[in-house]
Amino acid sequence: MQPEANLDINKVLEAYNPEIFRKQGYQIVDILADYLNQAISKNIKQSLPYSTPEKMLKKWPDNFSTEPTGNLADLTKRALSQSNHLHHPHYLGHQIAPSLPAAILCDMTSSLLNNSTAVFEMGPVSTVIEKSLINWMAKLVGFGTDSDGFLTSGGTLGNITALLAARQIKTGVDVWKKGVKEAPPLAVFVSEQAHYSIKRAGQIMGLGEEGVVLVPVDENYSMDISALERKFQETINTRKKPFAIIASACTTATGSYDPLDRIADFCEKHNLWLHIDGAHGASALISSKYRDLLKGVERADSISWDAHKMLLMPAPITALIFRDGNNSYEAFSQKASYLFEKGAQSEWYNLALRTVECTKTMMGLKLYTSLSVYGTDFFSTYVTAMHDLTRQFGEMIENSSDFQLAMKPQSNIICFRYIYEGAKDLNLLQRQIRKSILKNKSYYIVQTKLKDDIYLRCTVVNPFTTQEDLKDLLDIIRNTAKIKLNNRTYAK
Amino acid sequence: MQPEANLDINKVLEAYNPEIFRKQGYQIVDILADYLNQAISKNIKQSLPYSTPEKMLKKWPDNFSTEPTGNLADLTKRALSQSNHLHHPHYLGHQIAPSLPAAILCDMTSSLLNNSTAVFEMGPVSTVIEKSLINWMAKLVGFGTDSDGFLTSGGTLGNITALLAARQIKTGVDVWKKGVKEAPPLAVFVSEQAHYSIKRAGQIMGLGEEGVVLVPVDENYSMDISALERKFQETINTRKKPFAIIASACTTATGSYDPLDRIADFCEKHNLWLHIDGAHGASALISSKYRDLLKGVERADSISWDAHKMLLMPAPITALIFRDGNNSYEAFSQKASYLFEKGAQSEWYNLALRTVECTKTMMGLKLYTSLSVYGTDFFSTYVTAMHDLTRQFGEMIENSSDFQLAMKPQSNIICFRYIYEGAKDLNLLQRQIRKSILKNKSYYIVQTKLKDDIYLRCTVVNPFTTQEDLKDLLDIIRNTAKIKLNNRTYAK
Repeated sequence: MQPEANLDINKVLEAYNPEIFRKQGYQIVDILADYLNQAISKNIKQSLPYSTPEKMLKKWPDNFSTEPTGNLADLTKRALSQSNHLHHPHYLGHQIAPSLPAAILCDMTSSLLNNSTAVFEMGPVSTVIEKSLINWMAKLVGFGTDSDGFLTSGGTLGNITALLAARQIKTGVDVWKKGVKEAPPLAVFVSEQAHYSIKRAGQIMGLGEEGVVLVPVDENYSMDISALERKFQETINTRKKPFAIIASACTTATGSYDPLDRIADFCEKHNLWLHIDGAHGASALISSKYRDLLKGVERADSISWDAHKMLLMPAPITALIFRDGNNSYEAFSQKASYLFEKGAQSEWYNLALRTVECTKTMMGLKLYTSLSVYGTDFFSTYVTAMHDLTRQFGEMIENSSDFQLAMKPQSNIICFRYIYEGAKDLNLLQRQIRKSILKNKSYYIVQTKLKDDIYLRCTVVNPFTTQEDLKDLLDIIRNTAKIKLNNRTYAK
Repeated sequence: MQPEANLDINKVLEAYNPEIFRKQGYQIVDILADYLNQAISKNIKQSLPYSTPEKMLKKWPDNFSTEPTGNLADLTKRALSQSNHLHHPHYLGHQIAPSLPAAILCDMTSSLLNNSTAVFEMGPVSTVIEKSLINWMAKLVGFGTDSDGFLTSGGTLGNITALLAARQIKTGVDVWKKGVKEAPPLAVFVSEQAHYSIKRAGQIMGLGEEGVVLVPVDENYSMDISALERKFQETINTRKKPFAIIASACTTATGSYDPLDRIADFCEKHNLWLHIDGAHGASALISSKYRDLLKGVERADSISWDAHKMLLMPAPITALIFRDGNNSYEAFSQKASYLFEKGAQSEWYNLALRTVECTKTMMGLKLYTSLSVYGTDFFSTYVTAMHDLTRQFGEMIENSSDFQLAMKPQSNIICFRYIYEGAKDLNLLQRQIRKSILKNKSYYIVQTKLKDDIYLRCTVVNPFTTQEDLKDLLDIIRNTAKIKLNNRTYAK
């Protein structure tokens, strides 16, 4: 790095020049509109351009020059071409949305404003928008007017914040002040199929591996209540103090909903906090056809709900909603501070009191605007349609003798495998099928391990995906498998 | 919510229509370009449009309609007009950047792509860009080629992740597995002027209030080394096990740099982890004139560094860099998993192994592109100029008998107060001055409490702010104070 000269105001004026921004803005909008058109209409060859980390790293070296060298348009085009194309109808990968145009444009506004939403003064618009969105979502959950919450940067932060509140309220010890060491050994319960971030949250909080008790699942990969009762008793017997259950609605791997009503009964009986990880599946609440998947949800103490999954938003935007709004102040228990003097409600607008983050984006702007611009029916029909399509996909697979379903899909996530009687290593076969499709075909699908078996896994999340696409995918898998079976030593 | 109809593919096609996106994109770019022009040229009356949370909430109600009702352009204009205007040269508030145009446009690309960067496959471009940016930043820190790290969503997450690694490496116990209860009582040390998120991080991790030892500061609000020695001894005497020191570079309130070299000596002597919270102040490393503020930084075990403060990026984008890259895998100690089989380096590209978040934005794209588009000299001259201007501001204040500096500014943060001999309540006076300026004038300044006194506080972060603006601000404060002093009972 060379010694710099004094700040040249002309360079600053040029960098921030509104007319240059306007011109570059048009240019980037054109590039993005063309890209969107290509992705939606399958004019991009592959949903995922297959490459290796090492090859990619060479394309983006860290040799920045002291003088301007880069071309914004070129860099944008390169980024687009090498990325994962979520708007491509053959995108069936992880649970993240093909984001809506209005939301994308709102994120540009958010980035320009850079209002941080830590205190009201720094983000007045985003603060009140969060409040309104939480009110809207809380009604869908079935919470009363006492509920409250906020938006946070992703499901992981939502879950850890809820667990911190539970730790404070249900352990009988002021753990925030006194630390985990002064409390009895603590335990939370979660399905063994829950998202890895929950086990992590417990371990971040100092509970150790045994502080997060994994509960076995039933044949549909939902939490097994009799197993919960057994694990609970075992935990009590080792003198641990259970304080919370985290129910999955739904799980990441198979899209299974835990039995919320029965878990709520259990929590009531044993005075446990019930947090629902609804990151993916809470959006079913806006579908009149599928909202019963979350029967009992209104009995939860808290729920997290990602809008960047089934509400078609760019990540991250996670709502964390508490049935009793007062509890939303307990995660970072501010009892000692001015909060108690004024009463919690008087500070609803200084959000960083309750969120892990200090600085946040104006993340509510995109959802608020999209709900207004597209109307709520757009979202409910979308959620319903994705679930419907996944069930149809499930039926297709059930009716194919060379495929096996892990379970009938409950949500828009589906796990299945290609089977061939007598094949030596079915797990390796699924892996090789997937890799071959990623390298050579247009589809992006993922894989997951259930018990000891590898399954192919799809999330039907793209509104442009059709039954024909899914039929075509099964044919491709079939053909890929046959080639593998001929070439290798799978056959009898 | 009404029962939804089936998904109407025409509605979907319309929502994602690339030509509608193009048209709306132009429209929003025009609105943003006009806004930027107005903000920069002071054609917006106030940097912060003063309102109350209650009034604002009424403007953004949660009455979403089932059918489309909102107008994207109108909603965008409303959001802009009611927000905090960071590009206005009179914005002198919190430490967050008036974001650069190229970065704003990159964030639109990131939101369209929605590539989540949890595993390489889901975010190939952002994964390798992160790696390159970390390499570039690590060189500026003075770390060797063994260093490694990643980007995370804000300084709070950066600091907690570093502390988790420290907890795992320096306590002599596998706390990740066994929990805090099985370890001796743990303690970390941090200046009493450090960002609140650090104390919070310790308490999230279950260390309790006493697990985070606040070290008194000297007259410049930097950590007092003799106080550190004293606090350390006291802590040892109560049988606690110290494992880390978090040094501030710089502090939030006054912009003070802790004496990094001396703290590094202390850490070496006592086998403690040294984490540097460089969220705000690490950017001085790119200024040849000011990089000595961080003398000794290369001896840290880890450093966090926000690009959304002094590198002019939209939030959030925080780098967490480890001197020894292997340690970057310790926060969520994956020892039991496949990591150790393959060796950590083979998994550098699956970032969620090491970050709190699973889903992240493509946050590196904006910084990578901006460094290319504007050149690195642009950033180093900017950082130098903001520090120079703050020092000039400090001299102005020192030369005014009716103002008092909290300390000579070390960075681009400055605290001062209006004084009037014999005034009864100087603290109330500063508060009232600030409130009056927010309500009636164009400037946005904040306040902070130092010991028991309230000071006015400015962060000189806007490249359009001039000496004239700062002189004008002092005049406005002076005049505001005089009105208050005449109207109220401050006078002798």
